[in-house]
Amino acid sequence: MKLAFTKMHGLGNDFVVIDGVRQQVDLDPEAIRFLADRHFGIGCDQVLLVERPVDPSRALFRYRIFNADGGEVEQCGNGARCFAVFVREQGLTQADTIPVETLAGPIELQVEPDGQVTVNMGRPRFHPDQLPFLAPIEADEYPLEVAGESLRIGAVSMGNPHAVLLVDAVATAQVGRLGPAIERHPRFPDRVNVGFAAVRSRDHIDLRVWERGAGETLACGTGACAAMAVARRRGLVDDRIRVDLPGGSLVLSWSGESDQPVWMTGPATTVFHGRIER
Amino acid sequence: MKLAFTKMHGLGNDFVVIDGVRQQVDLDPEAIRFLADRHFGIGCDQVLLVERPVDPSRALFRYRIFNADGGEVEQCGNGARCFAVFVREQGLTQADTIPVETLAGPIELQVEPDGQVTVNMGRPRFHPDQLPFLAPIEADEYPLEVAGESLRIGAVSMGNPHAVLLVDAVATAQVGRLGPAIERHPRFPDRVNVGFAAVRSRDHIDLRVWERGAGETLACGTGACAAMAVARRRGLVDDRIRVDLPGGSLVLSWSGESDQPVWMTGPATTVFHGRIER
Repeated sequence: MKLAFTKMHGLGNDFVVIDGVRQQVDLDPEAIRFLADRHFGIGCDQVLLVERPVDPSRALFRYRIFNADGGEVEQCGNGARCFAVFVREQGLTQADTIPVETLAGPIELQVEPDGQVTVNMGRPRFHPDQLPFLAPIEADEYPLEVAGESLRIGAVSMGNPHAVLLVDAVATAQVGRLGPAIERHPRFPDRVNVGFAAVRSRDHIDLRVWERGAGETLACGTGACAAMAVARRRGLVDDRIRVDLPGGSLVLSWSGESDQPVWMTGPATTVFHGRIER
Repeated sequence: MKLAFTKMHGLGNDFVVIDGVRQQVDLDPEAIRFLADRHFGIGCDQVLLVERPVDPSRALFRYRIFNADGGEVEQCGNGARCFAVFVREQGLTQADTIPVETLAGPIELQVEPDGQVTVNMGRPRFHPDQLPFLAPIEADEYPLEVAGESLRIGAVSMGNPHAVLLVDAVATAQVGRLGPAIERHPRFPDRVNVGFAAVRSRDHIDLRVWERGAGETLACGTGACAAMAVARRRGLVDDRIRVDLPGGSLVLSWSGESDQPVWMTGPATTVFHGRIER
């Protein structure tokens, strides 16, 4: 394997980013697992492969995202931001608005004057069937019996399922205890991501997220959208807020109308450039 | 920070290796912690800095090893092997025998014809005071009450303290349960590394190691020496054996005489070359 790559992260969610436009790249699942291995390979949460678009009249690039286990995944807000910064830093484009093909369909990324990137994260879907979540009707919040406690949660799909629990302070939230219990609660047949959100003011939420299958993470983009959507629907925040995660801050916008998408703005950081030869 | 580096590993124990001979390097603990961070930096167990020797008449290089928390450590068998492969691959020397200054004093590394590296790991010290281990007299093995069980352990210092428990098979060894219980047993006032060793034949041991302060690791060089020393002292193995660890295999030699060192031979692998600019 001979491969040039760039290591990047979005709020600590880290990527090996590979230019498949200017170099021949042939990645099978075993190669992905090697690249993602933190001791024997490069190490990352996900591998992001930038390619030429299938339809150059409608997109500048295509990108694909692979989990550390080698499987391809649909979308990732942190990865989308890294992609946009990468193609500009590498001189592959100078556009501020970057239409791109993804496995989840076409999306458009906007590079802001300060270098941060805005991503259309799609619209929140609150109906319980969308997650799926076993509940008789759609509601702002639902009672849930977990580990002997009676909690109240919001539930929303951002393409993936999220439960959102409002807490007084994230520092004392029982993420390690309640996260896995809610993730595997029988009312979430496909399991669920769990956000612990503290509404600090009408434009500021603190958030920790227990990710389905991964445990607590530094920054979950869809989790930030889910917290925004649940808090906004309940009238607790305005239409543009800052969400502080352990890995850093995102800005989220949502009008509150169900046919409108959530917009997420945040940074992407290039850490180093590398070359693998073996 | 502008820095060229090489990512290497010895049986999965991974290092960011930095050439401080041909580039100006200024590493404070904060910089080390950044380099070692697996999400925001490069990511490694330890940072290895290669420098010019203080006394060029007696050594070709000096190297220093830093833990991920920024603190400097004395020695590391896996790191010593990576150092030797690094200076030859980088063209800094073509010598097969490489005298080098370390924080633990001068050592000599031998590059074998197959590219593996042999390291003098020092002599095993069995007296309980050397670990320290609270026991009235030195013995081949000691009874130890742990978590309601009566175990029998060997105890030896390889510069750091090791308890070695002989097991039937490493796959079923209770590493996650007994490891932390023995590590923190009150008879080890400075805590202890814990090896779970299965003697497969007179020249072959399987080994898993629970490392003090780190949990189970892929490969512990001093742990392999400790297992060899304890098994050899009890007459269970010959003077040259293979030790299979989760990260790969090492060859250990020890005559069995208390004034003789343990010799360790094993591989070091270069994964990629990188350049950080920020």
